[in-house]
This record gives sequence, structure tokens and C-alpha cells, in this order.
Amino acid sequence: MTEGLSNLRLIVDDNGFKKVADISKDKKIGMPNGHLDPEFLRNLTPGSSFEFNGRKFYVFECGIFEYVMYKLKRQTQIVYPKEGYYIMMKLDIGPGKKVGEAGTGSGAFTVCLSKAVGPEGKVYTYEQREEFYNLAMKNYNEGKVFDNVVFYNRSINEGIEERDLDAFFLDVREPWEVMERVREALKPSGNLGIIVPTVNQVSETMKSLIDNNFYIDEAVEIMTRRFKINPERLRPEDMMIGHTGYLIFAKKMI
Amino acid sequence: MTEGLSNLRLIVDDNGFKKVADISKDKKIGMPNGHLDPEFLRNLTPGSSFEFNGRKFYVFECGIFEYVMYKLKRQTQIVYPKEGYYIMMKLDIGPGKKVGEAGTGSGAFTVCLSKAVGPEGKVYTYEQREEFYNLAMKNYNEGKVFDNVVFYNRSINEGIEERDLDAFFLDVREPWEVMERVREALKPSGNLGIIVPTVNQVSETMKSLIDNNFYIDEAVEIMTRRFKINPERLRPEDMMIGHTGYLIFAKKMI
Amino acid sequence: MTEGLSNLRLIVDDNGFKKVADISKDKKIGMPNGHLDPEFLRNLTPGSSFEFNGRKFYVFECGIFEYVMYKLKRQTQIVYPKEGYYIMMKLDIGPGKKVGEAGTGSGAFTVCLSKAVGPEGKVYTYEQREEFYNLAMKNYNEGKVFDNVVFYNRSINEGIEERDLDAFFLDVREPWEVMERVREALKPSGNLGIIVPTVNQVSETMKSLIDNNFYIDEAVEIMTRRFKINPERLRPEDMMIGHTGYLIFAKKMI
Amino acid sequence: MTEGLSNLRLIVDDNGFKKVADISKDKKIGMPNGHLDPEFLRNLTPGSSFEFNGRKFYVFECGIFEYVMYKLKRQTQIVYPKEGYYIMMKLDIGPGKKVGEAGTGSGAFTVCLSKAVGPEGKVYTYEQREEFYNLAMKNYNEGKVFDNVVFYNRSINEGIEERDLDAFFLDVREPWEVMERVREALKPSGNLGIIVPTVNQVSETMKSLIDNNFYIDEAVEIMTRRFKINPERLRPEDMMIGHTGYLIFAKKMI
Repeated sequence: MTEGLSNLRLIVDDNGFKKVADISKDKKIGMPNGHLDPEFLRNLTPGSSFEFNGRKFYVFECGIFEYVMYKLKRQTQIVYPKEGYYIMMKLDIGPGKKVGEAGTGSGAFTVCLSKAVGPEGKVYTYEQREEFYNLAMKNYNEGKVFDNVVFYNRSINEGIEERDLDAFFLDVREPWEVMERVREALKPSGNLGIIVPTVNQVSETMKSLIDNNFYIDEAVEIMTRRFKINPERLRPEDMMIGHTGYLIFAKKMI
Repeated sequence: MTEGLSNLRLIVDDNGFKKVADISKDKKIGMPNGHLDPEFLRNLTPGSSFEFNGRKFYVFECGIFEYVMYKLKRQTQIVYPKEGYYIMMKLDIGPGKKVGEAGTGSGAFTVCLSKAVGPEGKVYTYEQREEFYNLAMKNYNEGKVFDNVVFYNRSINEGIEERDLDAFFLDVREPWEVMERVREALKPSGNLGIIVPTVNQVSETMKSLIDNNFYIDEAVEIMTRRFKINPERLRPEDMMIGHTGYLIFAKKMI
Repeated sequence: MTEGLSNLRLIVDDNGFKKVADISKDKKIGMPNGHLDPEFLRNLTPGSSFEFNGRKFYVFECGIFEYVMYKLKRQTQIVYPKEGYYIMMKLDIGPGKKVGEAGTGSGAFTVCLSKAVGPEGKVYTYEQREEFYNLAMKNYNEGKVFDNVVFYNRSINEGIEERDLDAFFLDVREPWEVMERVREALKPSGNLGIIVPTVNQVSETMKSLIDNNFYIDEAVEIMTRRFKINPERLRPEDMMIGHTGYLIFAKKMI
Repeated sequence: MTEGLSNLRLIVDDNGFKKVADISKDKKIGMPNGHLDPEFLRNLTPGSSFEFNGRKFYVFECGIFEYVMYKLKRQTQIVYPKEGYYIMMKLDIGPGKKVGEAGTGSGAFTVCLSKAVGPEGKVYTYEQREEFYNLAMKNYNEGKVFDNVVFYNRSINEGIEERDLDAFFLDVREPWEVMERVREALKPSGNLGIIVPTVNQVSETMKSLIDNNFYIDEAVEIMTRRFKINPERLRPEDMMIGHTGYLIFAKKMI
């Protein structure tokens, strides 16, 4: 395991405050009621609580989920971990797998993939816009667990370098435009996952999958509903996320 | 990678038929329209289609998801992969992690954990009922990817052998009865995940977590809604799963 | 109030059995464990329980909801009351209103409208297929509360007789084909409700509404989730309805 | 029909602005970009559009739904129309019915009931807190369609005046405390609807219904999910209401 996540701490309180801070830097850490010295956090065992300017906080290790949700810098719509983990399940991602991705975006899903395939696996990710390519590499380095990602700064319209990939994930505006390229890169029986925000795109993508000899396994959306943390008056939260994206899964046929 | 999953094949058709077959055995494979010789499947590259008694089928590699959903033998309510992967995300499971589980049940989540922690990780799972303990070991061996699980045939009421575990998952009727034991086994800042089917149990569990000095991170339910695979007449399926379980996540405070 | 609903009784038991029976006929009433004499039910005050062949049942008055769900004969997909009442709310249906409908189908929503507009209101409903037209009239007469519905056996493609209707409800395959006709029949500011099963139809309908100078108020779907009746082990039912239809609401602009 | 709703106008634009204004008053009407003379609106036929300070707006008649959502003054959590109409369906509310309610709260559901039972029906509503009692009467008069509501300023703990009511609706903190009173007021087979925000209350209420010889028909929650009005890029809204309340329906047994 490299640095990355182990330099990060999750700070929370009892009222929903959540923040991920980097304790490897000398920079003061902004809190809702002042600025905290990173040295102070470095000396606290994760799992500890502390008082700061009259308020109580708790500090924990930072996992991939917290890193993506509360620390990763975003300039794009990201794949949220709740979708990301469902995708990894359906793509059968695990230690040792070789996986392709386009586009990288802010790299949120890239760091999830990187962690899941482990030191023996490999992630190849393509992003045509240079600013996102740079951002994703920066984010990856910050949340890194394993050194196993190859970043490309170009569109897969121009072709995918790899062949016989175990799985591929597509997060692009027009998946149907690159379907042939993705087909070339996947091994037979290889898993393809696609995320799109609109139903019009779901229709177009399904047509393209059928035309390109994929078996469509599932089109699905995932909804999570949280409860308020109050055992005596237990009830769901008033608002919930109504939509992030539709997921489509397919398998390459010969 | 050991045998296990690589001996299994997913067989599907265009009308929703799904079956996972073991091609390492000599046993004939039951199909909706007859019995198939495993030798025939052994010679087919995954990704192929074939005609059998006048109907068309497709054969694919079998991933953990398909193994758990279509092959694993169940004598208990299982943790479905859609919850399982969300749990692994929140518990920050990944290659190299040490994870505890109680009860093992049919072992559905155990095989997911085993795959996710990889060859450097370890899963310790406790089940007090001997029939489930035996079933889970059988299921694990059939879907095995890595050799990294320790099975115990006893309740964690009698104590947990391990200390400083990265994470623990509880799928027992009365989580509050074993909360102290779980606390002993987890490292500080370690993640705890719990699944319960009823809201009464959610309340009781929350109280117990508060009493045992855990930080409650989230109580949540996950719903998935599938679309019919018809791009010209796109619409959700008529029926959906309304409930599997409530998930509660907490972190151990010092 | 006329005959209709008052001749019907709801029979239930503690295990989910539900049936609506007509006590005005001499016909024996089929039960899960034999046949019941209607005379017996006629003599029971609604709210009573009774034993029949060793099992306990309860008998209640029959409301519009029970009539539609458990008695109305269906040869078409019907508008379920859960959508029906949402539609009536958005169309501002109430006593005294004049409302149009196409197509009538089995008449499920027609009986809801009839009840809601009361003796001073009026419902005009169009159905081009003679078999459904006949079925809907039969169903209406059976569940009738008020005598206020005009049935037409033709498509509104050929024009709508009425003008200045307060509201209109469309349940046809291609709402965009009849949008001009509906516009003619509605009063300015009149409410239009539309139900369609697929997202492709939602898109087409929205375009047509925009083209025909309607203000689109809302496109929405309604989901209901039931709990099992078990206060000590409270949890949602395992399966729920995943989809019935999408509702679109609009207002006629001048 | 009396004054009330007919004095109100709904004003909207293309970007989600919604407002209900009273045109019977001389008071200037606040708009996002200035103040509008009510005289100006009085002269516009509902269904018209108008430009005001460089922006385009549309004016429509105001229905009960819009009145409750955008005009009714609230000092309490209200019963939203989406639940309100489901409740009315399950309680079999319609023209001519006699219905009881406790507590009145801000009167949101009272105005819905009033409209639905029409001139031949009657609504009896109890509210123990004087401020809400006064507010509800004010709201009712503003949105009034029919003159058919009796307001009481007291708790039903002290008894309900009416007997043989067709239906009763309970929106109080501890429904189990008043269950006997409600039972006295309902006719045999009469419908009871209850709304509570927490699952703990659902459990307690179910127990009380069983103890008081009610048949529990359903415990349910209603979720609505809206789509963005964009036919070319159709997708649900990002956020949705996650919870308003749980509904419980029961029928009085003899």
C-alpha cells in the first residue's frame, strides 16, 4: 500500500458535519468554527474524539467512499460510489482484473476501480479533455491505494490500445459512437457497463448494443434512502436523491 | 486464482432464462428443453451462442454476481449482491483487508468478501448452526476465487478470536446481544456494517450502537429498479423488489 | 345515491383474502372454502365477522377503491385508483365539474370520475372499440353512485362533442394524434391529464403539448410501498409494483 | 360555488416559478421582478400569458392542489395533497359523505375534504390549539368551495360530538390515545385513515387498532418522482421528497 488514503482523516460531528483532511500537509485545516493544526490531528489515533473551540468532533480513517464523497475535487458529474460499487459487482471487478474506462472525468470511479483490482490488476482510463485528465491524475494520487492505473489523454474514438480486457466502463455522452471500439478491446464474454443520465440515451444505447452483438443483461437504476439517526423517532430523511444515472450492463458475444 | 468460478458457465436466452452450470462435473445439465452434455459446454468459448433442441442460448463466464444469484444453494435469507457491494463500499473492503462476519448463513456474502479482499486479505466468519456452516463452506468452495476464509462453527456470543479487524459485518437476529463482542474484535476507527429486516430491529440496533460508543454513520435501504430491454418502448419492469433489508453502518470510537 | 355500490360487499380475512360480492343477485358467492348464500350476507350488518366452513371472515361496505380493484371486469390495462386519485387532484376534479375522457377502456377511471363530480357534474367518455365501450357501461352500472356519465362509442379523432370542459383525461396509445381535438374541447386554463406506460411516449407527448400551446405542469410517477401488518416485526412487503404508468399534466393556454 | 378559489389565480413561468395570488384584494402582488396590480390580473382571462418587466408569465385558475401547495398559510406540518387524495380514495370520500378529522392543523386536508364531499356532505374537524384552529378557519375561508365544515376548538380526547360518521381521519401525535373515541364516532364498517411520520408510531398505532377491534387494511407510503420537462433529454429530477408520512387504513368492526 502506498501513501494516499492513509494520509487522510475523516472528521465528523453529531450534526451531519463531514470533512476529509490531509494530515501530511502543513496547511491549516478549515473547520466550521476555526482552523485546526494538522499536527494536532496527526497525533490523534483514528477513532478518537476531540473538543475544538467548544464543539465535539470525531476523527476516523478515511476510506475510498469518504475520499470520493468529501475530498475528491470535481469538475464533472462523477460516478457516485453507490453506483460505482454496483457497477463493479456487475462487471465482476476484483483483484487481478484488467479494466478499461472512458471517460475518466474527475477520476472518482477510477480510484474505486484501482482499489478493487489491487496490485495484480490494471486500470486503463481514457479522457480526451486535458483539464479533466490532469485533475483525475491529481485526484488519483491523493486517494491512491495501489499503483495500477494508466491514464490516456485522448478519446477512445481514436482507438483503444488494449485487447482482451476483462471489463470496460463507459461514461460518455454518446456511447453508441464508440461501441465498436469498446467491442475490439473486450475479451469474448467480457463485461460492459455504461452510465447515462437520460432515458433517451438508454434507448439509443440499447439499440447500439443490439447492433454490435452484445447481450444486454440489465438496465437499472439504484435508489438509496437514508433514515434519520433517531431510534425513538425513526423515519426516512425528508429529501433523497431522485436520480443520478441509468446503468446498462452487457456482455460481449463472439 | 483457484478453480471455483472458472468451472462455472452462465447460460441465458433472450426471454429471461438464466442458469449457472458446472462444466467440471460429468453430470448432465438441465435445460428448459432437455439435458445438455457438459462436454459440449466445455468446448464452447464463453461469449458463444448455440442452438439446443430448436432454441437459441448464449454462454458466458460466471462472475460472483451470477454465482450468488443463480447457483449458490440457499437455506437462509442471503445478503444479495446489491446490498453486499454497498456494504463492502461502506466498510472500505479491498485487497489486503481483514474482515469478520457473523452469521455466515449460506455464505453468499462470504464469497463476495473473499473475492474482494484478495490473496493478501482474510475473512473470518462465524456461524453457530452446523447445517449452515457446512453449506457455506460447500458454497464457498464451489464459487471460490481466493483461498482466504476461516470458517467457525459457533456463535460470536462466545467471543471472537480475532482482534484489530479492519471491518465487521453482522447478519444476526439480535445485533445488540453481540455488540460488545464485535467492539472487542474491531480496531479503533474500524467499520461495522449490520443488516436487519425490520424497523424495530433498526431502532434497537441504533440504541445499542450508541450505548457501545460507536459513531453511527448511516442507516439506509437500497432499491433497484430494472427496465425492460425494449428501446422503442422503454419502461420499468412491472414488479420490483420492495424490500430486502435495512443497512446500518458505524465506526468504532476509542 | 342510486343502487350500484350499495349492493356490493367487501369480504376479507386475516391472511390477505379480498373479494367483492354482489348481494342483490341470487347467485351463490364463491369463497376459498365453498359457496356462500347471498341471503346470508344480506342479513349481516357491514362491519360484522362470520365463520364459514371453519374459517373467519369479515364483511364491509364496498367503496370505489375496492370496487375497482376487486370487482370491476377488466379487458384492458386500467388506471389504478392510486394514479386515478392523483389525476383527479391535479385536474381539480370535484362536485359539479364537467370532465372528458378518452379512451374509456374498462371504465375504471370513469367510475372514479363519476363519483367525484357528483350529481351536479358530468363525465363524457369516448371509446372506439365496441367491446370495451360495452364493458365499461356494464362496469359503470354495477359500481354506480351517480347517474352522470355519457358514453360514446367512437374515437375522439373524429372530434369531441363538448366544449369548455373543465378538464380532460387521455389514456390512449398516441396522445399526440388527438392533441388538437382535446384542445378544442377544453376551456381556457382547463386541465389536461395524460397517462402513458413508456418513456418514449412521455417524450413524444411533451413535444406535442409544447407544439399545441399547453403549459406543461408536471410529469410524474407514483410509487406506493406497503408494509406488512405486523407491529412487532414491521417491514415493507417483499415485492412492490415497480411501474404502472407515467402521468403528464398540462394546462390550456389561450 | 362560493367565492374562495375563484378569487385566486396561479401565476407561473417557464423556469419553475409558481405563485397563487388573490385578485379580490387591492393589495399589490409581489412578483420576482416587481409588484403587479391585481386589477391587471382581474382583466386577464385565465390561460393568458403576459409580459411583466421583461419576463413572460402565465396565469391560470387556481385549483385545490395549487391553493394548498402555494397559498395556504402553514404553522404546522400539513397533509400534502398527494397523500390527501390517496387518503380520500381509501376512505371512500365523495359527494354527500360525513367525515371527521383530528387535528385540523393548518387546515390543508380540511379544504380537500370540504371540496370532495360537496354541498350535501359535511366535515367535522377538531383542533385543540387555538392558534391552529383560527388559522385553519382563515385558510378554509380563503380556499373555500363549499360551505360544509364545522370547526371545533378542542381535543377529541374530550369526546367526539358526532356519531355514525362515514369516515374519520387522524393526524395526531398519539393516535392510540384517542382510538376509543374515534371508534365511538364511526359507523360500523366506517373507514379510518391515520398519518404518522415515524415507524415507531406505525407500530404503536397498529397495536392499538388491533386492540380496538379494527380491521387493518393497509399501511403504506407514497412516493412521487418528477421528471424534468425536457423531451429530448428526459430524466427524473435530481432531488425528490424522501418522506412525508406513513398512512394506515382500517375499518371498524362491530
